[in-house]
Amino acid sequence: MTNEKICDGDNVLIYLDARRTYMIKMQAGQIFHTHKGYIKFDEVIGKEYGEPIKSSLGIYFATLKPALTDYIMKSSRNTQIIYPKDAALIVMFSGIGPGSRVVESGTGTGSLTTALAHYVGPTGKVYTYELRSEFQKNAAKNLQRSKLIDHVEMKSGDVTVTGYDERDVDAVILDLAVPWLVVSHAFTALKPSGIIVSFSPTIDQVVKTTEALKENGFVFIETVECLMRTMQVERGKTRPNTMMTGHTGYITHARKIMKPPTQESSQSLSQEAMPEVTVEKPIEQEETA
Amino acid sequence: MTNEKICDGDNVLIYLDARRTYMIKMQAGQIFHTHKGYIKFDEVIGKEYGEPIKSSLGIYFATLKPALTDYIMKSSRNTQIIYPKDAALIVMFSGIGPGSRVVESGTGTGSLTTALAHYVGPTGKVYTYELRSEFQKNAAKNLQRSKLIDHVEMKSGDVTVTGYDERDVDAVILDLAVPWLVVSHAFTALKPSGIIVSFSPTIDQVVKTTEALKENGFVFIETVECLMRTMQVERGKTRPNTMMTGHTGYITHARKIMKPPTQESSQSLSQEAMPEVTVEKPIEQEETA
Amino acid sequence: MTNEKICDGDNVLIYLDARRTYMIKMQAGQIFHTHKGYIKFDEVIGKEYGEPIKSSLGIYFATLKPALTDYIMKSSRNTQIIYPKDAALIVMFSGIGPGSRVVESGTGTGSLTTALAHYVGPTGKVYTYELRSEFQKNAAKNLQRSKLIDHVEMKSGDVTVTGYDERDVDAVILDLAVPWLVVSHAFTALKPSGIIVSFSPTIDQVVKTTEALKENGFVFIETVECLMRTMQVERGKTRPNTMMTGHTGYITHARKIMKPPTQESSQSLSQEAMPEVTVEKPIEQEETA
Amino acid sequence: MTNEKICDGDNVLIYLDARRTYMIKMQAGQIFHTHKGYIKFDEVIGKEYGEPIKSSLGIYFATLKPALTDYIMKSSRNTQIIYPKDAALIVMFSGIGPGSRVVESGTGTGSLTTALAHYVGPTGKVYTYELRSEFQKNAAKNLQRSKLIDHVEMKSGDVTVTGYDERDVDAVILDLAVPWLVVSHAFTALKPSGIIVSFSPTIDQVVKTTEALKENGFVFIETVECLMRTMQVERGKTRPNTMMTGHTGYITHARKIMKPPTQESSQSLSQEAMPEVTVEKPIEQEETA
Repeated sequence: MTNEKICDGDNVLIYLDARRTYMIKMQAGQIFHTHKGYIKFDEVIGKEYGEPIKSSLGIYFATLKPALTDYIMKSSRNTQIIYPKDAALIVMFSGIGPGSRVVESGTGTGSLTTALAHYVGPTGKVYTYELRSEFQKNAAKNLQRSKLIDHVEMKSGDVTVTGYDERDVDAVILDLAVPWLVVSHAFTALKPSGIIVSFSPTIDQVVKTTEALKENGFVFIETVECLMRTMQVERGKTRPNTMMTGHTGYITHARKIMKPPTQESSQSLSQEAMPEVTVEKPIEQEETA
Repeated sequence: MTNEKICDGDNVLIYLDARRTYMIKMQAGQIFHTHKGYIKFDEVIGKEYGEPIKSSLGIYFATLKPALTDYIMKSSRNTQIIYPKDAALIVMFSGIGPGSRVVESGTGTGSLTTALAHYVGPTGKVYTYELRSEFQKNAAKNLQRSKLIDHVEMKSGDVTVTGYDERDVDAVILDLAVPWLVVSHAFTALKPSGIIVSFSPTIDQVVKTTEALKENGFVFIETVECLMRTMQVERGKTRPNTMMTGHTGYITHARKIMKPPTQESSQSLSQEAMPEVTVEKPIEQEETA
Repeated sequence: MTNEKICDGDNVLIYLDARRTYMIKMQAGQIFHTHKGYIKFDEVIGKEYGEPIKSSLGIYFATLKPALTDYIMKSSRNTQIIYPKDAALIVMFSGIGPGSRVVESGTGTGSLTTALAHYVGPTGKVYTYELRSEFQKNAAKNLQRSKLIDHVEMKSGDVTVTGYDERDVDAVILDLAVPWLVVSHAFTALKPSGIIVSFSPTIDQVVKTTEALKENGFVFIETVECLMRTMQVERGKTRPNTMMTGHTGYITHARKIMKPPTQESSQSLSQEAMPEVTVEKPIEQEETA
Repeated sequence: MTNEKICDGDNVLIYLDARRTYMIKMQAGQIFHTHKGYIKFDEVIGKEYGEPIKSSLGIYFATLKPALTDYIMKSSRNTQIIYPKDAALIVMFSGIGPGSRVVESGTGTGSLTTALAHYVGPTGKVYTYELRSEFQKNAAKNLQRSKLIDHVEMKSGDVTVTGYDERDVDAVILDLAVPWLVVSHAFTALKPSGIIVSFSPTIDQVVKTTEALKENGFVFIETVECLMRTMQVERGKTRPNTMMTGHTGYITHARKIMKPPTQESSQSLSQEAMPEVTVEKPIEQEETA
C-alpha cells in the first residue's frame, strides 16, 4: 500500500507545534508565509502526508492530513459550532453509520453536518435543512472543504411549517431553537425504530422537547450532558487544566415506535404448551453512561 | 422504500418500558415469557421493526431494532466494557470512518471493537489483538450477534513483544494495562498523519503513555476526560440525576508525523519574489472541548 | 495545655479502619461489642482523645473526637441530609461566623442546623423553623448529640404563612420545597446587607426563587452547583473513584439592600472641587468560583 | 437592635450592579469618582449598611458590608488565591470553629488565612507561617483590611526545616509546594484526634502527601476535588454558564491518632458477663460527598 500524496487543492495542516498549526489549501505556484520562514506549495504538493517540509529559514514543519475534528473546529463561526465532544455523542446515540440516511435541521455552520456526512459515508445521505440562506452558503463552503458535500443534500425552508420531505430515515438530528415544534415532523420522517437526537443549550428547551417526544409516542427518552476536561500531563506536574468549557448543551435522544391499537384490557389467550426460551436479563438503558 | 422486516435469527429489543426491555434472538417456533404474558416469536418474525406485538395477556410490547449502543452495553461483561460516551470520543478523535483500516488492542469484551467495526463499515477493517483466548471467543460471539464480525479480523498474540502485522493503518486504538509498551509498535503500524488513541483508567498510565508518545515523535498529544451526567426531565421537577459514573478513564490521542532530518541551523534560502497567500489564523487545538 | 479527656456521656468515634468506625456514646459500666472483641467503656472514659484502646481480643482501636462532618453525616436520615460539601458552601456564601444570628427553615434532619450552630458558636444563635413536629424532635436529638443545642432556638409553624419572628439577622438559610414563598419574609428578617442562601434540588425551584429574589430587591444573585469527586490515591494507581454523587442541589445566594427612593432623573449636583481617591478596580463577583 | 452604621475607615462595597461594584475604604472629606457621578464619603459615613446613596448625577448606589467571600476574592493577587469553594471545604474538613487553634503554612496572599481567622473568631487563633517576607507583608495588609488580624499570629521561617512551634492545635492547614515534607511536623503540632488538610494543584503532590500521611500514622485519609459551576437563571433561558474553572486543586484531609504499642497477637481476655450496648451501624466516611 502506498501512502496518500498531497495534491494541488488539498487542505493540509501545516504543523510547527500545537499552538502554531495552520489549515492551508495547496495552490500550485504559491507560497505560505510564517514567522519561521515561507513554504513553497510546490514543494509540498507531491509529498506524502506526514512528511516534514523545510521552510526558507531551514525550519521543519510537519504536514498532516486534516481529521474530522479539524474540519469541525474550522467550520466558519458566524454562529455556534457543535463541539466534537457533542458531535461524537450525537452520532453515537443516533445509531447512524455507513449507509445511513439522516435528516438534520438546522444546518447552521455545517459543523455537525460534517460529522454526520463523514460517518454515513458515500453510501449514505444527510438531508440538512436550513432557513437562512447565508448560513446555507457558508455551510456548503465548509462541506466542500472537507470533501463531504457529495454525501449531503442541502435543503431550504422552514421545517416547523413544512416538515421534512424524507420518509423512513434512520435518524433525525435537531439543533434548533425550537426543537419541540418539529418533533411530530421528525416522527413522520423516521422509520419505525428510528432515532431522534436533539441538542439544546437550555433546560427549558429540553423540557419542552421531552414533553413533545412523550406526546408523539417516542420511547427510551433520555437527556444527558457531557463535560469534557483536558489534562496537563507531565511527570510530577500532572493536573486537569484550569479553564474548561462548563456547558455547551444537553443531548436528548429517543426512539420511534409504532403506536399499538388502543390497549385492550387483559385478554386471556389460550395457554397452549410451547417450547420456552430463557429470558435474558433486562437491558438497563440507564447504565449507558 | 419498505421498512425492514424482522427475520428468524435477528436480535430484537422487546420493549415494555425503559426498565423492562429485553434483547432477544428470534427463533421460529419458540416463545418468550414475561410477567406480562408470553410472546410467540412466530408472531414477531415477519413484522416490521417498530410494530407493536401483543402478549398472551393482551399487553402490547414494542419491537425495536437494536442500535449500536445496545450492542455495546450488551457485550458480555467478564471484563470491563468501554461505555458509549468513551467509545464515541475514541471514535471521534481517531478520525476513522467508512473504509478506514484500524488496529485495536486488546479486544477485551469486544465492546469497543463493535463500535469501531460499525463505523468503518463493510469497506473498512478492524484488526483486533487479544492475548487471552477466552476473551477472544467471547468477543467473537458479541461481534457475531451485532453482525459486524465480517468487518473484523481477530488476532492473537502479545503485541508488547511482537508488535502489529499491519502497516499504513489509519488509526491504532489502545485499551491495555500497559499502553506505553506498544506505542513504538503503533508508530510502525500507522500511516504518516495517522492517529493513535489510548484509553486508561489511571493517571500513571496516562503519564507513561504520554511520555512514550513524545519519545516516538507523535504530535498534537492531548488527554481528556469525559463526565456524562443524565438528567431527570419533568416539568417542575427537572434536575440532574443523583448518582453518576464519576470516572471511567482518560482518553489520550496523538498523531504520527515522519521525523525530519536533524534540524539544521537557520539556513537562509534565496528570497525570491513570489506570489503570496493570506495566512489563515492558527487552528487552536485547545478549543476542541 | 492538656489534651481533652473522654468523659462519660461523650460521643466517641471508635476507629478500626475507614470502613469500620462507630460513633458511640460512652456509658460507664457498659461494653461495646465488635467482631474484633469487645471494648469496656470504663477503659475508654478518662483516656485522651486519639489514644489507642485495646479490645478483649487484643486488637487496638483508635478513639477519635467526632468532627463537624461526622455529626452532619450521622444526622438520622428520615429525610434528606445536606451533605458537607453543600453545607460548607452554604455557610461560606452566607457570610456567617462566630456571633452571627441566623434564621433557618426548615430544620429537617438538623444536619445543616448542626453546621450553622457550629460556626456561629456560643455567642451567636440559630433560629430554626420546622413545621413537622416529628422532624423537630429528631433534629433536637441530633443537636443534643453534637452538643450544639444551646446555640439553637427551635421554632414551630408554617413560615410561608407567618414569616419569621426575628429581625436584623445576618443570614437566612432556606432548605424548603417552596423557597420562593418565603423570600419576602426573609427580606423582612434580614438586616440590610444581610445574605440569603437557598438550597434546592430542582431547576424549577431555582428559577422561581431567583425571580422572587429579583422582585424583592435582592442583589448579587448567583446560583451555583458543586460537584465533589473523591480520588483513589495510590502510587501508580491514582484515579478518581468510579461512582460519585452526581447531584444534590443548587445553591442560590443574594444580598439585601434597602430600596432607594424612586430613581430620579439625572440630577446635577454642584460640581465642587474636592480631593479625590483612586478608584479601585471593580470586584468581579463572577470570579468567585 | 440597631443596624450597624458605616464608620470612617470602614471598607464598604459600593454597588451599582453585579459588574460594577467597588470595595472602598471610607475616608472622611474625600470623594469616590464613578462614571455615574461621584460619591462623597461624608454622605456615606454614618449611614446604615444597606442604605442607598445618591451620586452627584442622581444615580443611586447601594452600600453593602463586605462578606467573607469579598475579602477572600479581594486578597491582592501577587500569587494564587484559594477560591471560596475550596476555602469552604478546607474549613469544613478541618473541623475548626469558634475558639479553634489552627496552624497554616504557607500564608501566601492570606486569602485562606482570612477564612480561617473568620471562623476561629476572637477566641481562637491562626498561626500562619510564610517564608517570603514580601508575601507576609501583603497578607498582613489583607488581614488588616478584613479586621481579622487580631485572630492571627504571623510567623516567619522555613517550616520544612524548623517545623511548627505550636502544640496540641486543632488543625493544620497546608498550602505548600511540598506538603509531604511537613507532614511529620504537622503530626507533632496536632493534638490527638486533630485534623490535617492539604490543598495541592497536582496529582503528584497528592500522591506524595498521601504517602507521608500513611507513614506518619494518620487515618481517615481522603482526597477530593470540587467542581463548582455557576448557572444563568432566567425563565425559559436557564442553563449552566459556558465557561467554568475546571480545576483549582485537590483537597486531602486526614486525622491524627496516637500509635498503639506494637499490635499483640490475639490476646484472649476473660469473658466476663457484662451489660451490652447495641452496636450502631458503621459511619461510612465514604459517603461524605
